Amino acid sequence: MHAVDIIRKKRDGENLTTEEIEFIIDGYVSGTIPDYQISAFCMAIFFQGMDHEETTDLTLKMANSGEILDLSSIQGRKIDKHSTGGVGDTTTLIVAPLAASCGVPVAKMSGRGLGHTGGTVDKLESIPGYKVNLSPREFMEQVNRIGVSIVGQTGELAPADKLLYALRDVTATVESIPLIASSIMSKKIAAGADGFVLDVKVGRGAFMKTVDDAVELAKTMVSIGRLAKKETVALVTDMNQPLGRGIGNSLEVKEAVLTLDGQGPANLQELCLTLAAEMLILAGHTDQYGEARRILEGKLKNKAGLQKLAELIEAQGGNPKVVQDLSLLPTAQYQEPVLAKQSGYVTEIDPLAIGTAAMYLGAGRETKESQIDLAVGIELKHQVGDWISQGEELAIIHANKETDIQEAAQTVRQAFHIHQNRISPNPLIYTKITSKDV
Amino acid sequence: MHAVDIIRKKRDGENLTTEEIEFIIDGYVSGTIPDYQISAFCMAIFFQGMDHEETTDLTLKMANSGEILDLSSIQGRKIDKHSTGGVGDTTTLIVAPLAASCGVPVAKMSGRGLGHTGGTVDKLESIPGYKVNLSPREFMEQVNRIGVSIVGQTGELAPADKLLYALRDVTATVESIPLIASSIMSKKIAAGADGFVLDVKVGRGAFMKTVDDAVELAKTMVSIGRLAKKETVALVTDMNQPLGRGIGNSLEVKEAVLTLDGQGPANLQELCLTLAAEMLILAGHTDQYGEARRILEGKLKNKAGLQKLAELIEAQGGNPKVVQDLSLLPTAQYQEPVLAKQSGYVTEIDPLAIGTAAMYLGAGRETKESQIDLAVGIELKHQVGDWISQGEELAIIHANKETDIQEAAQTVRQAFHIHQNRISPNPLIYTKITSKDV
Repeated sequence: MHAVDIIRKKRDGENLTTEEIEFIIDGYVSGTIPDYQISAFCMAIFFQGMDHEETTDLTLKMANSGEILDLSSIQGRKIDKHSTGGVGDTTTLIVAPLAASCGVPVAKMSGRGLGHTGGTVDKLESIPGYKVNLSPREFMEQVNRIGVSIVGQTGELAPADKLLYALRDVTATVESIPLIASSIMSKKIAAGADGFVLDVKVGRGAFMKTVDDAVELAKTMVSIGRLAKKETVALVTDMNQPLGRGIGNSLEVKEAVLTLDGQGPANLQELCLTLAAEMLILAGHTDQYGEARRILEGKLKNKAGLQKLAELIEAQGGNPKVVQDLSLLPTAQYQEPVLAKQSGYVTEIDPLAIGTAAMYLGAGRETKESQIDLAVGIELKHQVGDWISQGEELAIIHANKETDIQEAAQTVRQAFHIHQNRISPNPLIYTKITSKDV
Repeated sequence: MHAVDIIRKKRDGENLTTEEIEFIIDGYVSGTIPDYQISAFCMAIFFQGMDHEETTDLTLKMANSGEILDLSSIQGRKIDKHSTGGVGDTTTLIVAPLAASCGVPVAKMSGRGLGHTGGTVDKLESIPGYKVNLSPREFMEQVNRIGVSIVGQTGELAPADKLLYALRDVTATVESIPLIASSIMSKKIAAGADGFVLDVKVGRGAFMKTVDDAVELAKTMVSIGRLAKKETVALVTDMNQPLGRGIGNSLEVKEAVLTLDGQGPANLQELCLTLAAEMLILAGHTDQYGEARRILEGKLKNKAGLQKLAELIEAQGGNPKVVQDLSLLPTAQYQEPVLAKQSGYVTEIDPLAIGTAAMYLGAGRETKESQIDLAVGIELKHQVGDWISQGEELAIIHANKETDIQEAAQTVRQAFHIHQNRISPNPLIYTKITSKDV
């Protein structure tokens, strides 16, 4: 087998065999196939695509390029939840304790933020004392003891994906649905859960800009899950405005606490209940969506989810009192309101602009090496569809550098589109893809 | 400017600016842009193409990446001739002295063979004593003195093309018309002539498999010539059977001598007269094709072309007597006839099979490092359209290793397709492309 022949085959639109895909990935990881052949291969995939079998072969090969976590010492069906990344997406901090409070074991590895999107591990680090690094043994024991653990990635999961992603990033081959799907699913499969609930974001603030593309990505990932014998469900959800109100690490932890306390923004609460319900179904707790919802709504009402979050924080060395006293979380020195310059209906809140403004305040990373400020961010006071009057607060800038405020305020003001005619907001959830759909 | 943005732009089908193309090639040659970005860039070009302006920008940038030969010390309009490569294509050895005998200065740099196609420099080396390496000064002085010189490439012409070609070869990005056109034209332009006559081969034995592709390649190169202010004409010619009868280095020199002596195969003679006529027109000797043909036919009849070949050989240190006595050329130890196993019409002589068989005999190079045997090759006794009787000679294998004969004979026999119904051979010349056509 020669790499050039495999590249040519894909270039000419043919399907690759399992052996050919394994040859490419093995050669790349071992260094016998150089970067310049792999980047041409990725560009050929960009144009010619891969079918679900090829994408699954690629996914499994990348998953198997490193350790596959063995979660078998955790009792029950382990269900993981993954979001393709958005702005103000604090769902994991709500869904994980909520599902755990229903008895679904949640052994979750999360990532850090990059660019305009945040990461759960960064958010957790805004809780005083919270340790994101546990040994695999501590991690699993904690899930058995209290039903939930959220940590940073331990060990090197799917190292082939890490290599490939770095190369794609500099060769304009990121935006390929089979490559995106295999990248996500290889890491998920390596992280060892039995089933996955995927939240595929679509819109200006997401990687997928159109519903069609998001549905295709969702179908590809669900199909990989089916072929890899990991039950998978995907929701295609809106990212044409930030999710919830808080954008920034401690602001999002506050919002998670409020939501688990029944006081969260409606869209965030609804999305969390839907995702958690799918987790309950995959875990085998019920096969009725309505029943799953009723169970979860009960856990919101009796604060069992909030209690589980406090347990999680305490178990990982953090101060559980933050769930009663949000002032224990980092707070920025300046809280500067952004006022509306005109009255009208909010027709759009550009999530990319908001996420980028939060990043420049210090909430996110411009590059992997950037330092972040856990206290800063943006707190939205309105959502798409709201009427606002001139002079009313659109948002509050949470900053630690006075010099940052003006630029952030200007970006936020521009991100709010205000018109005289009300438009209907986009649906929160566009569609659900299950293994029956692929 | 960032390479990744330029790759993305081409990937998305946009046209690149002159500055962007220069940035890519400068960066590649200087090493600031790595192979893996260039290979992804080439694959993006494979799928999205480049228009004639972009292709010309790329061509000129590659031509200017090294020395541009200054032929101004040679009097007259220097016209170069180039073939995209075929089997049995010995036209340069005929056309160069023939045009020179009419007063067109021919300062020609030629290459070596690779794979199933031969190279003029190898063929010339089968003439005892012929030196293919002259200093630029000797080269130009000889053209001023006797009107013609054919040498190997001196110095490093278009080093960017050399780098790029080596990368394309291992990343399945060779078969892209703008990349092929810019590769050929960058070397031609760097070699310093004022105008070019291009012979674009099409068919089983050529790089271009369809007339449409060959016409597109021809149009692209003629357009580059027009934009680069180098008058260029291209003929699209057949390579669905070997050209002439001899395939192999000294066999092709013999055939060139015979053709200049008026005894060559009809198709080879016709193609040479057509190419040389275009050279006379580009050189400004006449604007009438018919007149150019009459002049050239006169030079065949009075043996002026043959005489010029003898002068060329003598000037470069070779034995000019070879033009009277072909036995002075290297001759293989074995001449083994291949006999027809059935009677019928020859409907096809697969040039790729014949060229590959000659290569395995030692006439060509499997890799750049292969040693070649100048005496060996294949001599065809028939052409497409001929009737042959069972037991008649199809071809003669010229070999220096007895063990090679049987395999070559079998390949040659398979290359001859023999049927009961006669088919019309393909036209020798499909079309001519001039700057008026692009």
